[in-house]
Amino acid sequence: MALPVMQRDIPSSPQTGREARLMVRRGEHSGPTSGLAPGYVQGNLAILPEALAGDFLRFCQLNPKPCPLLGCSAPGDWRLPALAEDLDIRTDLPRYRVWREGRIVDEPTDLTRWWRDDLVAFVIGCSFSFEEALSEAGIELRHITCGCTVPMYRTTIATMPAGPFHGPMVVSMRPMKPADAIRAIQVTTRFPSVHGAPVHIGKPELIGIAELAKPDEGDPVPVGDDEIPVFWACGVTPQSVITTAKPDFCITHYPGSMLVTDRRNAELAIM
Amino acid sequence: MALPVMQRDIPSSPQTGREARLMVRRGEHSGPTSGLAPGYVQGNLAILPEALAGDFLRFCQLNPKPCPLLGCSAPGDWRLPALAEDLDIRTDLPRYRVWREGRIVDEPTDLTRWWRDDLVAFVIGCSFSFEEALSEAGIELRHITCGCTVPMYRTTIATMPAGPFHGPMVVSMRPMKPADAIRAIQVTTRFPSVHGAPVHIGKPELIGIAELAKPDEGDPVPVGDDEIPVFWACGVTPQSVITTAKPDFCITHYPGSMLVTDRRNAELAIM
Repeated sequence: MALPVMQRDIPSSPQTGREARLMVRRGEHSGPTSGLAPGYVQGNLAILPEALAGDFLRFCQLNPKPCPLLGCSAPGDWRLPALAEDLDIRTDLPRYRVWREGRIVDEPTDLTRWWRDDLVAFVIGCSFSFEEALSEAGIELRHITCGCTVPMYRTTIATMPAGPFHGPMVVSMRPMKPADAIRAIQVTTRFPSVHGAPVHIGKPELIGIAELAKPDEGDPVPVGDDEIPVFWACGVTPQSVITTAKPDFCITHYPGSMLVTDRRNAELAIM
Repeated sequence: MALPVMQRDIPSSPQTGREARLMVRRGEHSGPTSGLAPGYVQGNLAILPEALAGDFLRFCQLNPKPCPLLGCSAPGDWRLPALAEDLDIRTDLPRYRVWREGRIVDEPTDLTRWWRDDLVAFVIGCSFSFEEALSEAGIELRHITCGCTVPMYRTTIATMPAGPFHGPMVVSMRPMKPADAIRAIQVTTRFPSVHGAPVHIGKPELIGIAELAKPDEGDPVPVGDDEIPVFWACGVTPQSVITTAKPDFCITHYPGSMLVTDRRNAELAIM
């Protein structure tokens, strides 16, 4: 296996997206999904009332790098058959966050009691997919080596606003030797539906990052003198934008507890 | 036209590779080929005795980034029909350099009196092709803005040796804003037959370049505080390797006076 570190702490790991979802649905797994069903696409979740769904859809289309939309349900429908057979978005993630006006009101392991007929589910691509491709290309991912969360930073790069949704782009950072950085740009360019190519390399100060050692989210990682920081648009951006917009009601996945789909990471490569 | 600056000093510019070659063959143009027949592939030339041709071919195959081989003639044959119809490699470049044991012995405008039955011609891809694609992508090329020659540096990156051919890789440098550098990596990745993706970005000291302001060949160009240097393997590498090997006899193109082929730059894109 290419990603041994990501499989830690999962005693009997499901091998397909469907096995992972069924295990979660049966209540047998309520933790992080990292390392579950290697090779299968995982996605960030955002659920919004229909009244806001149009604006959010437009926000995703205007900002494809931080918000690469993998799928979107019909109002009130808990299925997304294009992403996963027999999916029930209300039960198939290990844990959720329920928000009211920008505040967390619940962190349930299923959404049955919160579901409404006007809710629209959005599944957004996540860096796990391109990290698998980078690992297979022999590129070290420092946060995986360190066993920590990738460092994330709020930047001075503005997203394109749509309705109430606006705010700065959040980026994740992976330090690499220059030759690996070039290869990483090539590899991730092939995956536009999961953030695609980096948005910035080198010189963090140009995008408003004062100190690499002080990320806004995640953990700091060491950066060698022979390395340059490589920055990708991050799926925390839409979450941050949604919670800033303080909708009456919305639901997101609990950090690290993603939707595991039936699609393969390799399918997402455009070439 | 996408490349107005490159067309300077050419009063009535030929529009196809064949027109350019015929003009050169008639003795009507003996200067640089930059800007001639926009859109057509130009190539570096190396001509070696058959006894060395096998080693040099192997050198090119081992070092495709500095030595991307576009075509290679049969011994004694002055044609390369895959590159250009009715080509005569002895007359169709504006000027040549004839070398004996590492020293220039002639700089003729045609090779008729130097031609031998054992000579093999190698045509090697050149950065003009990818620079056209970069310009079309809206990326500024500083040396073109400055109206000078791209800065080139000998590096500590070793080439893979083959027979008598060995030595350091020479790179060219183009300073760019980080977003342009990322785009430039994508664009040039599509052109593996004309040097392809950069070999290095940022941190010149890691590849043995002490001062960007002091190139080994070409002219220095300004690098902004908001820019990073982007380094491509350079076609000067094979020339430098050949002259270092000091063969009894060899021929190269005169700097800047390249072969203009019938192939289009756009054809070289792998996708």
